[in-house]
Amino acid sequence: MREIFVKTCQDASTKARNGYIDLPHGRVITPAFMPVGTNGTVKGIYHDKVEAIGYRLILGNTYHLYLRPGTDVIGQFGGLHEFSNWNHNILTDSGGFQIFSLPGLRKVKKEGVSFQSHIDGSRHFFSPEKVVDIQHILGSDIAMTLDYCTPPDITYKKAIEALKITEEWGQRSVDHVKSISDFRGNLFAIVQGNFFRDLRKESAEFVSSLDTPGIAIGGLSVGEKPEVFKDFLAYTMDMLPENKPRYVMGIGSPDYLLEAVQDGVDIFDCVMATRMARHGTVFTDDGPISLSKAQWAFDKGPIESGCTCDACTRYSRAYLRHMFKAEEMFGGMLATEHNLTYLYHLMERTREAIQKGCFADFKKDYLERYYFKKQD
Amino acid sequence: MREIFVKTCQDASTKARNGYIDLPHGRVITPAFMPVGTNGTVKGIYHDKVEAIGYRLILGNTYHLYLRPGTDVIGQFGGLHEFSNWNHNILTDSGGFQIFSLPGLRKVKKEGVSFQSHIDGSRHFFSPEKVVDIQHILGSDIAMTLDYCTPPDITYKKAIEALKITEEWGQRSVDHVKSISDFRGNLFAIVQGNFFRDLRKESAEFVSSLDTPGIAIGGLSVGEKPEVFKDFLAYTMDMLPENKPRYVMGIGSPDYLLEAVQDGVDIFDCVMATRMARHGTVFTDDGPISLSKAQWAFDKGPIESGCTCDACTRYSRAYLRHMFKAEEMFGGMLATEHNLTYLYHLMERTREAIQKGCFADFKKDYLERYYFKKQD
Repeated sequence: MREIFVKTCQDASTKARNGYIDLPHGRVITPAFMPVGTNGTVKGIYHDKVEAIGYRLILGNTYHLYLRPGTDVIGQFGGLHEFSNWNHNILTDSGGFQIFSLPGLRKVKKEGVSFQSHIDGSRHFFSPEKVVDIQHILGSDIAMTLDYCTPPDITYKKAIEALKITEEWGQRSVDHVKSISDFRGNLFAIVQGNFFRDLRKESAEFVSSLDTPGIAIGGLSVGEKPEVFKDFLAYTMDMLPENKPRYVMGIGSPDYLLEAVQDGVDIFDCVMATRMARHGTVFTDDGPISLSKAQWAFDKGPIESGCTCDACTRYSRAYLRHMFKAEEMFGGMLATEHNLTYLYHLMERTREAIQKGCFADFKKDYLERYYFKKQD
Repeated sequence: MREIFVKTCQDASTKARNGYIDLPHGRVITPAFMPVGTNGTVKGIYHDKVEAIGYRLILGNTYHLYLRPGTDVIGQFGGLHEFSNWNHNILTDSGGFQIFSLPGLRKVKKEGVSFQSHIDGSRHFFSPEKVVDIQHILGSDIAMTLDYCTPPDITYKKAIEALKITEEWGQRSVDHVKSISDFRGNLFAIVQGNFFRDLRKESAEFVSSLDTPGIAIGGLSVGEKPEVFKDFLAYTMDMLPENKPRYVMGIGSPDYLLEAVQDGVDIFDCVMATRMARHGTVFTDDGPISLSKAQWAFDKGPIESGCTCDACTRYSRAYLRHMFKAEEMFGGMLATEHNLTYLYHLMERTREAIQKGCFADFKKDYLERYYFKKQD
């Protein structure tokens, strides 16, 4: 197994850590948030702006890209980087989450999962091997194993069944990657186990034993209470090896990010920052605010003073409010740029705090202010 | 009356002319197409990209901006330039076209027109004086007189009535501007007269006699056949003074633009370029193409080879097709940038042809190719 992660600094009083991951398209400094580009575009923003903000690793969705435009199209271009003109790293998920959460019939067997496209209802079949092959065609720098995702309210019996399948698929994915001589990506296996402690433990130990350069934690932030998220994240993280990069899937709010960093998580992704932005909600140090509100009608100030994004350096809250009231797409474009800039800077501040050995204080102070205005 | 237009070159065999208009926010080289920024944003594109393409004059809509965000908001910022962070020139229309074409009740009297907001049905009243005042608050570099716009199928009697009111409003607008000591903009009066030759003539002569630095031609490209448009445009243009800039409202397709240039028109605007773009249709020298078509699924080529826009230098037709099929807003963003770049370059080519004295040939060759593929 190649080692791709190097830890450069350990926080004094928490498990938070600085480091970097070396990937085919360059180095990624961690902890790092990853913007989501489901269809080969981070919604509402030019790739060169994503790059200029500082991002070096974004997501693509295997399920979506497989269905549309298809691997025949992307393969002809030599991969997703070339097709979408993004010259830094791409992580692709395995499609498991989409297959099990989007509408449409699905049927799971040991061999794999058959499912219907959410676009046109057409029938498809994913095996763990096929999902690796698709990500190979996409040219992913980090690829994920196919997993059987379950909602938070299932029985223990169902959770065991799903976990066993996830484990078998994980092993088969690892084996299959070894059979592809020119596989340049890095396969991460995914910890599942729903919200059962023993299953989480079994999964964490199994995934840790697999010969993969990195580990992902799935099945969290799926509707459970924040305390449950915190509890299960910390519990799971405790069982993972130090020398591999750890990725928590599907978290993207400042409070969840800081919680994950505290537990030693290195990378995370979420559509939240960009989706919220398109609906006019933006991050600030005083918590998220809705730009559509009447209170900004005459406000000449920026979203967040000191922020370096175009929205903050060139436009007022009043202008942004007007954009959202008039349903102008430029509102979503500017808010997207702000939210991605905000999260990038938050990670910079986080890395600095770890370096200074004061992450716990930083987190406490940050969240105190972040939650304070929410009570309004 | 200040003279703001200087003719720099006359085409050898047509009425096409090169020149420039000096405005409060700088010089505009003509003939020039103006992108439309209805609500204080050219839809789907950053103002700095509009500027980088080369545009120095864009439109804002008085009717829309008056209703939302309102002159109290924009006035507090010192005008539309500051509010929308556009440091070049802005032309605002008078709202006449919107009042008479958007849904809602309206009632015309000599004093002005009462109408309902298309947003919330609220009642408002525009007099010619008030419309000048609104544009004064917006800080328009070119302002327009309130006009009574009529559809192409009305009776002669109705057309006369409307014209008389337009003329009275035109005179009152000119008088009112003179009473505003710090009015920095340039008021243009509008030729109307529907599709009746004698009324067009009367209107052209009346507007020419008014003390305004420029003249607009309204009431064309409102659904009439291309031959009728050509006929009435040429007929009207023949009666306008040479020393004033001439503006045809609401045209934006390459064929209509070249037709207007041939008659000596200097500036024009239309939402077509940006609206089409958001629906996936882009200009090429071989005519407009729809990017959603299956034929581009594997096409590695750009929309138009040689085009300098981001869409053409960084992305393939296949990628753009994928953006539109996946309903990604980035498709509209890229197509908007292309269409505005295309029209800017078309105007550059036009100005060059005029300078070389070969505009007629340029137009003929261009349209031959432009229309050829349309027959597909």
